[in-house]
Amino acid sequence: MAERGIYVGLDVGGTTMKAAAVTDGGEPLSVPAVRDTHPELGQEIGLKTMCETIRLAVAAANLTMADVAAIGVATPGLMDIKAGLILDPPNLKPWKNVPVRDHIQKTFGKTTVFQNDANAAAYGEFWVGSGQEAHSMVLFTLGTGVGGGIIIGDMIVEGEHSHGGELGHLRIDRPDCGRLCGCGARGCLEAYASATNVVRRAREDMAGFRGDTQLRNFYTANDEGFTAKDVFDLAQAGDELALKVVHDTAYYLALGACAVIAAVDPEMIVFGGGMAKDEWFRDMIDAYVRRFGLPFPVKTLKVKLATLGSDAGFIGAAGCARLAEKIKAEA
Amino acid sequence: MAERGIYVGLDVGGTTMKAAAVTDGGEPLSVPAVRDTHPELGQEIGLKTMCETIRLAVAAANLTMADVAAIGVATPGLMDIKAGLILDPPNLKPWKNVPVRDHIQKTFGKTTVFQNDANAAAYGEFWVGSGQEAHSMVLFTLGTGVGGGIIIGDMIVEGEHSHGGELGHLRIDRPDCGRLCGCGARGCLEAYASATNVVRRAREDMAGFRGDTQLRNFYTANDEGFTAKDVFDLAQAGDELALKVVHDTAYYLALGACAVIAAVDPEMIVFGGGMAKDEWFRDMIDAYVRRFGLPFPVKTLKVKLATLGSDAGFIGAAGCARLAEKIKAEA
Repeated sequence: MAERGIYVGLDVGGTTMKAAAVTDGGEPLSVPAVRDTHPELGQEIGLKTMCETIRLAVAAANLTMADVAAIGVATPGLMDIKAGLILDPPNLKPWKNVPVRDHIQKTFGKTTVFQNDANAAAYGEFWVGSGQEAHSMVLFTLGTGVGGGIIIGDMIVEGEHSHGGELGHLRIDRPDCGRLCGCGARGCLEAYASATNVVRRAREDMAGFRGDTQLRNFYTANDEGFTAKDVFDLAQAGDELALKVVHDTAYYLALGACAVIAAVDPEMIVFGGGMAKDEWFRDMIDAYVRRFGLPFPVKTLKVKLATLGSDAGFIGAAGCARLAEKIKAEA
Repeated sequence: MAERGIYVGLDVGGTTMKAAAVTDGGEPLSVPAVRDTHPELGQEIGLKTMCETIRLAVAAANLTMADVAAIGVATPGLMDIKAGLILDPPNLKPWKNVPVRDHIQKTFGKTTVFQNDANAAAYGEFWVGSGQEAHSMVLFTLGTGVGGGIIIGDMIVEGEHSHGGELGHLRIDRPDCGRLCGCGARGCLEAYASATNVVRRAREDMAGFRGDTQLRNFYTANDEGFTAKDVFDLAQAGDELALKVVHDTAYYLALGACAVIAAVDPEMIVFGGGMAKDEWFRDMIDAYVRRFGLPFPVKTLKVKLATLGSDAGFIGAAGCARLAEKIKAEA
């Protein structure tokens, strides 16, 4: 095993994958190596690109593979975490049953751990980000979808079917009349609070709003020229309707947080991703959590913004590799 | 330490407390010793009664305290599990800040563990009840209230503020218009699916029902003569309105189960308590879970009825004591 305690974390997304060598203290040794994922080129090429990105990351840190203690790989679901398999993720079509962990382990001859991308990001924030002083932490990731990860002690709640922390599918409204989610059900948090749905709700709210709002300037027939960022920027500038849309978003996220509190009662809830940048938005969520959460836990529960940004995934993947090595060393 | 691996479990409720000596295999060595709790007599007498009940349990098993390896005590919340304190439980008024764990540990000179009663029941079912073949299990306890416990691996999800598994306060309807819960919030599962609320919903449904229903025979001005059991019995006999009330109950419980699936994705969900006696009711819940839960996990998730009945609490408390001894031995 390498002596220096260097771990490589690789975070595979539908568009790009990123990797970096990370120290035992959670510090990336370079900016991440980035490669296009090109899932449409098939999984064989995908596996090759993963290995190439790992090699690039090691080179970028001026190291050789001999310096690397273990490798962590994070990918989006569906997956079988225990088996180390990508199953059939909508973001990586047409990949199917890809033996990621074994392939990388064999290629490099290193302990390789496999994890869900949102779980890895949660572990990254828990290890060296917002949650580093917490015993337990839940991350909500806000992007095109809403994901999440739950960490208790040093354990990631992976779930029996690799669906632990699927927080975008916590239901915050009735299944008969709530908003329709991409998963086919109604009332899921994601159908309210994802970037796409913030824009959709803004459109709907405009339809019934008689007052003045700068949101109308962004109105386009498709979603291309009208993003959640526009809504948040206008809210910050004081636009009444944009502010209402953002307030509602905070309220929906708080309802998701309240469900997590009743289930696992964490010490800290962290919000990360494109929308979760501003303290004033955190304050809004925080206020709704205090109002609608279980009274005793929310007295001292901490609500924070994530600090690692889009590095959380590969840092967390490296952290998972480190954790696996630690557990092995203790056994 | 005693050689035989005998653990005493004590389950303290608002009305009675029960204890038994339990083997390393989870078998109680006698019917439980039972004493009235009489919280109104104060916590000093309460602690004495706890010790007396433990002694009675050991005697009932024809053992002496020297045979006991460790003791587990389960009480209703509010509590501080880590500190071993009963804080201020509504069911044990006027007790406040009762140092249960330390008192019992000092009295008997035995390792004593302290746990929430629903968590202990969940651990009991996980150890030697319905969940004994599961890696992870969630218990919903259906009674005057709705409680719960989450077990992952051999770990109880206690929560940072001892509120892990407060599943009765998972929200299944909007906080602005849902049913009012005893906790002061709206939309909590408990406000729909507790025994008290099954009866309340039956009354409300009767008010708007024009057809024939035997439920009217049970109609009384107060809840004394009209119980959830009556509703379930009539449903089983085919009464249309009673069946509707029970179906709705199964639906609400399934929504709670779906939230737990999205959060921790367990291998098994177990329903215990007075209402969860019949396979036809389990079948109803099961069907709603398959319909409204995350598609991938619910393909193989198991939904079961609890098997330990009201013994789950003291068996689980003994199991927690055993687990603590095991962890100590391995360290």
